[in-house]
Amino acid sequence: MADKIVIIGSGPAGHTAAIYAARANLNPVMFEGFMAGGIAAGGQLTTTTEVENFPGFPDGVDGTELTNLFRKQSEKYGTIIHTETVTKVDFSTRPFKIYRDDEVTEAEAVIIATGATAKRMNVKGEHDYWQRGISACAVCDGALPIFRNKELAVIGGGDSAIEEANHLTKFGSKVYLIHRRDQLRASQIMQKRAMENPKIEILWNTVVEEAKGGAGGLQSIMIKDVVKNETKELPVGGLFYAIGHKPNTDIFKDFLDLDETGYIITKPGTTYTNIPGVFAAGDVQDKNYRQAITAAGTGCMAALEAERWLEAQE
Amino acid sequence: MADKIVIIGSGPAGHTAAIYAARANLNPVMFEGFMAGGIAAGGQLTTTTEVENFPGFPDGVDGTELTNLFRKQSEKYGTIIHTETVTKVDFSTRPFKIYRDDEVTEAEAVIIATGATAKRMNVKGEHDYWQRGISACAVCDGALPIFRNKELAVIGGGDSAIEEANHLTKFGSKVYLIHRRDQLRASQIMQKRAMENPKIEILWNTVVEEAKGGAGGLQSIMIKDVVKNETKELPVGGLFYAIGHKPNTDIFKDFLDLDETGYIITKPGTTYTNIPGVFAAGDVQDKNYRQAITAAGTGCMAALEAERWLEAQE
Repeated sequence: MADKIVIIGSGPAGHTAAIYAARANLNPVMFEGFMAGGIAAGGQLTTTTEVENFPGFPDGVDGTELTNLFRKQSEKYGTIIHTETVTKVDFSTRPFKIYRDDEVTEAEAVIIATGATAKRMNVKGEHDYWQRGISACAVCDGALPIFRNKELAVIGGGDSAIEEANHLTKFGSKVYLIHRRDQLRASQIMQKRAMENPKIEILWNTVVEEAKGGAGGLQSIMIKDVVKNETKELPVGGLFYAIGHKPNTDIFKDFLDLDETGYIITKPGTTYTNIPGVFAAGDVQDKNYRQAITAAGTGCMAALEAERWLEAQE
Repeated sequence: MADKIVIIGSGPAGHTAAIYAARANLNPVMFEGFMAGGIAAGGQLTTTTEVENFPGFPDGVDGTELTNLFRKQSEKYGTIIHTETVTKVDFSTRPFKIYRDDEVTEAEAVIIATGATAKRMNVKGEHDYWQRGISACAVCDGALPIFRNKELAVIGGGDSAIEEANHLTKFGSKVYLIHRRDQLRASQIMQKRAMENPKIEILWNTVVEEAKGGAGGLQSIMIKDVVKNETKELPVGGLFYAIGHKPNTDIFKDFLDLDETGYIITKPGTTYTNIPGVFAAGDVQDKNYRQAITAAGTGCMAALEAERWLEAQE
């Protein structure tokens, strides 16, 4: 028999959907993923440190801890959580089919909350030194011994880049924030923090062209000032990417309407996709706000809409 | 000089907007209200008991406690909170004007998060026994000595009505849930709870026509079975209303587009109202989801949109 609701994804959107669906006695089944999109179950929150802006936590809360609280709450009300990554779906007929390799589950309604994944640069040497000095997650990896008291670099210009740079100053001797333009897109409070941190130096109008090293891992990067058109070698022991995200929608593209950057298109102000019974919540359908609290809000909306939709089918 | 952002309201939407605006160095000013719309600062959450579905609180959290956490977080990042009720606004010119009786504040941008207020029945005798046995807030008043070991009644058929009925069984000897139709609109899990609670009896197809009593307060209600067309007297020591809400938009109706039931109309998927620089978040613009977590999500959206709008004005 088909499950009533399958939730794909385990960030704030997925778990809020699960809490609401479980309390509505819909027995939701969640596929939380196993390093899906290269990220641990719980999604992008697990790659951040202190979360200051999730309401209800005036003293801040660690991203992974917050994820654990969500998960505990989902399970408390009866959500069945599988630590498996969905590899394929078939939304062409109902009940919908959800595959994990050869295993298949059927679902009357599906809530997609697969989020987005950090982008890579694909510069020369990146592959050689990936996880040997190059990382897309300062918070996961910054505390590793190989980065202690080294000069480090972060690529990016948004809040996440500054958050990661700040985080890395706890471990490295200095942190370069490398940005290809002459101004940051980060929020004012984050820019102020970067400017006021004596261990952070911003390299404006600069791009990374190559990662170099040896048996011990990354040793330097070739950087280019795109205004002066000058290239030089910068010795660093770590290089951290904070350059944006890709929505995790590859397995849905044959069925769902996506925008030009791959985000799921929902009816504005709802979580409805183009397929009745398939709902999308969180960052997988949001390139505008992308906050944990907005994702959670849309997760709730998806569960309420799925519940109403299921009732209407009976 | 005009404040950059004034936030009117202090529920999950208002405080989430405040947290985001404060962290963006916008020095938000909040008018949290003083019994605005008949409800304490913090809004409807302060009239509920245990909140089980706000993500991040697997053990549940008291509504008032959650509100206090929001407030503490807003203040931590610099929100200035005034315990005053906004009595009038003038959005006809910029900067916008926000009045508390004769006092006026000017604002470059305004976020409206005034929520909604519980409705009353206006039956015969209601005025005489209001707060003398009749209440719109079981959670606020249920524990009062006058209700102990009495038979009580709740009017309504939604989640709130059942939550209030369940709550009242802690105090009363029996609780009648009076509903004018032959089925409840409450969620399945809540219906199940009502059915399984031996102290709750549901009176279907029934309306309350009159409240009767004496010097000591409410003593009985006249109820009518609308199918059998029979009226009888039901002795109760307390009558609690849980019959829906009215959005708190009276002071905005000369400026903002409202729908037929008084809710602020926002551009779907955003918090934009018809006036540039005025944003609306939370239940004041939502008659569909009405959850603390959805309100919080839209509060965040309003702050981000106000920040971007202000930047665009500079």
